[in-house]
Amino acid sequence: MISVFGHLNPDTDAITAALVYAHFLTRTGTPATPYRLGELNHETAYVLREAGVNAPDLLAALPVGSSVALVDHNESAQSAPNLAELDVRYVVDHHKLGDLSTAQPAFLRFEPLGCTGTLLLKLHREAGLSVEPTDARLLLSAILSDTLQFRSPTTTDTDRDAAAFLAPIAGISDVEGYAMQMFAAKSDLGDMPADKLLKMDYKVFPLGSETWGIGMVETTNPAYVFGRQAELLSAMQAEKAASKLSGILLGVVDILNETNRTLIVSDTEAEVVQAAFGVPTEQHLADLGKLISRKKQIVPALEAYFAQ
Amino acid sequence: MISVFGHLNPDTDAITAALVYAHFLTRTGTPATPYRLGELNHETAYVLREAGVNAPDLLAALPVGSSVALVDHNESAQSAPNLAELDVRYVVDHHKLGDLSTAQPAFLRFEPLGCTGTLLLKLHREAGLSVEPTDARLLLSAILSDTLQFRSPTTTDTDRDAAAFLAPIAGISDVEGYAMQMFAAKSDLGDMPADKLLKMDYKVFPLGSETWGIGMVETTNPAYVFGRQAELLSAMQAEKAASKLSGILLGVVDILNETNRTLIVSDTEAEVVQAAFGVPTEQHLADLGKLISRKKQIVPALEAYFAQ
Repeated sequence: MISVFGHLNPDTDAITAALVYAHFLTRTGTPATPYRLGELNHETAYVLREAGVNAPDLLAALPVGSSVALVDHNESAQSAPNLAELDVRYVVDHHKLGDLSTAQPAFLRFEPLGCTGTLLLKLHREAGLSVEPTDARLLLSAILSDTLQFRSPTTTDTDRDAAAFLAPIAGISDVEGYAMQMFAAKSDLGDMPADKLLKMDYKVFPLGSETWGIGMVETTNPAYVFGRQAELLSAMQAEKAASKLSGILLGVVDILNETNRTLIVSDTEAEVVQAAFGVPTEQHLADLGKLISRKKQIVPALEAYFAQ
Repeated sequence: MISVFGHLNPDTDAITAALVYAHFLTRTGTPATPYRLGELNHETAYVLREAGVNAPDLLAALPVGSSVALVDHNESAQSAPNLAELDVRYVVDHHKLGDLSTAQPAFLRFEPLGCTGTLLLKLHREAGLSVEPTDARLLLSAILSDTLQFRSPTTTDTDRDAAAFLAPIAGISDVEGYAMQMFAAKSDLGDMPADKLLKMDYKVFPLGSETWGIGMVETTNPAYVFGRQAELLSAMQAEKAASKLSGILLGVVDILNETNRTLIVSDTEAEVVQAAFGVPTEQHLADLGKLISRKKQIVPALEAYFAQ
């Protein structure tokens, strides 16, 4: 039995990709079970509720040598804690290749697309498998989520085509309206403690010899987030100390206006952000303008800075 | 323009995969040029001559940031010397994933198949592209070479099906006879200095904290190779010293009987081979019996030994 899971602090793509790829592997003769590496965010909970699908179980510690499939990630810092001891047999991802290695020849499928869901649709087509309506809804949701409904610069024509193909199978005629409901669910943060908000969509990256944590809050209501700025800065400071990070950032993306204002916790981050992005920082904020993609814009700029 | 190349000390799969994948990328809208990272072996020279295809040019030093496609390999020790400075955009391979990383999301396609050529056929089919007769001949040759005409334990049903599909397109009705001619060409080693014979199909592997070089001579005429044992042992000793290796092995595979007797240069290698494979060594030889695949049998056993 293969255990299939997406990254820590899962988003909609990480959860739905685990569900759909486990189903795909099982349908093609390799029994597989989906898992998650953390709590669902509000958007993902909305997506699963609307689809009538239960959340996958939280991954328990896997014995050494267990066979696994990674979706929507490949770096050890974003994966199961004992990844190095596991037997990685399958990877389906749309991120850059990090520190992964495999003990044996494996199935690896990486493409520079906006969403793992788009690649999963491709796998179905190549295998001559129809996409079942529930899977179509999950994949469409992932594409809308990861591309911010095609607003993110990571969006490709293949993602747009995939969404157009999936919507009728999913029985969703008003894609725009469905996306708005997803984003409203994601923006419903009223009951969430600041440390959870920070970790909702949060990844750790090696940058040169340093290690940085970068969270993103994508919301239709940025004013609410900035109203909690003091709390969030405290949570960032605490996480930075607890995880011995060199730096920590929290980008607040206004989904509808496609802009990013990023919280800056100390002079260390301020200096790096000023140099890497050429923007001023003040009042613990840097206006990164249209740089809304962590993967395609924020991390590459930081990597270029630390590679100097 | 993308530069496409296979591993150092290229074999038939490394050369033909570079030729066919460069052609594939160009046909699908991404101009690409094939290169090689070393001299052709006699088998590959025979294959290209029969196909009426020129050898790809030797790769010149690539400027930092050049876009490249790797075929039939992914580890830096087997690749262009400045791989870490290059922009890896595409990888098509059937080996385990080693120390590769990419600066950006890339196209990676790895499957546990007997030959890169089999995977390249799959890419054509997925793209709805016909395989041209010359490409079919190159891919078929690679499959016959890498699987030792389906004798190697790396062979999968997908490789067999691919060969059966390609043979009529290539216009090769007597696949058995063609394979025998390839192997005879490979076994025609009369004019080859011992150091070239060692390096003909040679790869360097990190094993625990050590670095080992492992060559393979696949031949229909092992008696000829063992007749040159003293020369080969000297060449191995010299290479071990020059490249500061912890150990070096040269496996001599009798293609037709599917057996491997491996040359042992010193007590260091003898101890490891005795422990890792449970066989005695004498007269600078270890009889590894049916263990004829470096990738699937020799290296995994050594890795398991060094992981203890």
